[in-house]
Amino acid sequence: MTERDMTALGGNGFHFEDIPSEDVDRMEALYGPLGDSVRALVDAVIRTEADADTIQQARSEIDAVTARLRERQSDGPFGIRFNRAGRAWSWGNAAVGLRNAVAPPLVIVHGQDGLSHTDFELGAAYEGPPGKVHGGVLALVLDHLMGETASTGGRPTATGTLTLRYRQATPLGPLRAEGRIDRVEGLKTFVVAHISGPEGVTVEADGVFILPRWARDEHDGRPT
Amino acid sequence: MTERDMTALGGNGFHFEDIPSEDVDRMEALYGPLGDSVRALVDAVIRTEADADTIQQARSEIDAVTARLRERQSDGPFGIRFNRAGRAWSWGNAAVGLRNAVAPPLVIVHGQDGLSHTDFELGAAYEGPPGKVHGGVLALVLDHLMGETASTGGRPTATGTLTLRYRQATPLGPLRAEGRIDRVEGLKTFVVAHISGPEGVTVEADGVFILPRWARDEHDGRPT
Repeated sequence: MTERDMTALGGNGFHFEDIPSEDVDRMEALYGPLGDSVRALVDAVIRTEADADTIQQARSEIDAVTARLRERQSDGPFGIRFNRAGRAWSWGNAAVGLRNAVAPPLVIVHGQDGLSHTDFELGAAYEGPPGKVHGGVLALVLDHLMGETASTGGRPTATGTLTLRYRQATPLGPLRAEGRIDRVEGLKTFVVAHISGPEGVTVEADGVFILPRWARDEHDGRPT
Repeated sequence: MTERDMTALGGNGFHFEDIPSEDVDRMEALYGPLGDSVRALVDAVIRTEADADTIQQARSEIDAVTARLRERQSDGPFGIRFNRAGRAWSWGNAAVGLRNAVAPPLVIVHGQDGLSHTDFELGAAYEGPPGKVHGGVLALVLDHLMGETASTGGRPTATGTLTLRYRQATPLGPLRAEGRIDRVEGLKTFVVAHISGPEGVTVEADGVFILPRWARDEHDGRPT
């Protein structure tokens, strides 16, 4: 990563950490399972039919763990961090953050020709209508997938417009989302995507993603 | 609630529970604080800088609590439950579920003339860009608010189309979302909404919400 890249990232609120990638791997191996444990707890708290004493006891034990973790903690949110090798990690991200139990977390695979996909499973914590995924959770998955798709090749983007068409209810369980770049026009990248379940496509989306102001000089992103 | 209403709800996967509303209140008072405790834990797991031993220990304690809660649990997601008095509760819902730590949870206020709003605060667990709310989380908030707005007056609806226009980044912290019914045309209810932060409106949305097939006979929802 060049000094110029580092300065650009820092200017956008990305946080530089002067640590080798092996240390990032080691932290990932430590925090990933903790995130998964919290995801299982979130699910159990929704589904439990335990008696009142067990609930009260669970609550005080959770509070004790939280207090211990908070003895040393950052002042604010996790943000996006990067090192000199160009590795970036956003473990607090609401869609992909491995330390964030709100996130499934999605693992997005970038293929050839601007195609991206993610296979994921949504359980009780993502419910809207009975047994179905909340429409807003599907929007979260699509917004993130499409944003990353638009940014393929290192060109940063922010969501401009997102349109979602809900074709049928999406059942909780294993799902797949796919996105691709439709075209690029000046500052704008047009992305299309969909989510499918066992019964086929459930949501279709298209979005316009825009090169942010801070990155325009770097990427020749002037209007055509 | 009439027998006819009860049959219609049951047919859509809503689950009837033959318990008085006072018992629902009692459970709400028991589970609400547990949900809040898990929300605090989710935040702490994102922000902690504790050493590896503390992290491992936290994980095994969380797993023990989860195992105890799972000794008696429902087979599937929470769903939407209702009693004879017409009280309904969806404590597992990804946007408003008080037992679901994925949900902020939103508390939506329905005013006069089809206006709805919600004041809420989003912390580290809802981050996308550094210090900003994830665009997909804003979509989740808007989808839920707008769906509830469309359903004002007891007419059930499902999201058909949702369009989001991101005007500026939304900072983490206190926010407000407002929605209103723009017009109703046959099966379709058109809703507009926006989210605003300290610097004004950040996202605008419009959506088309559709009377579901199972409810059409009940609500005279034939095309105009």
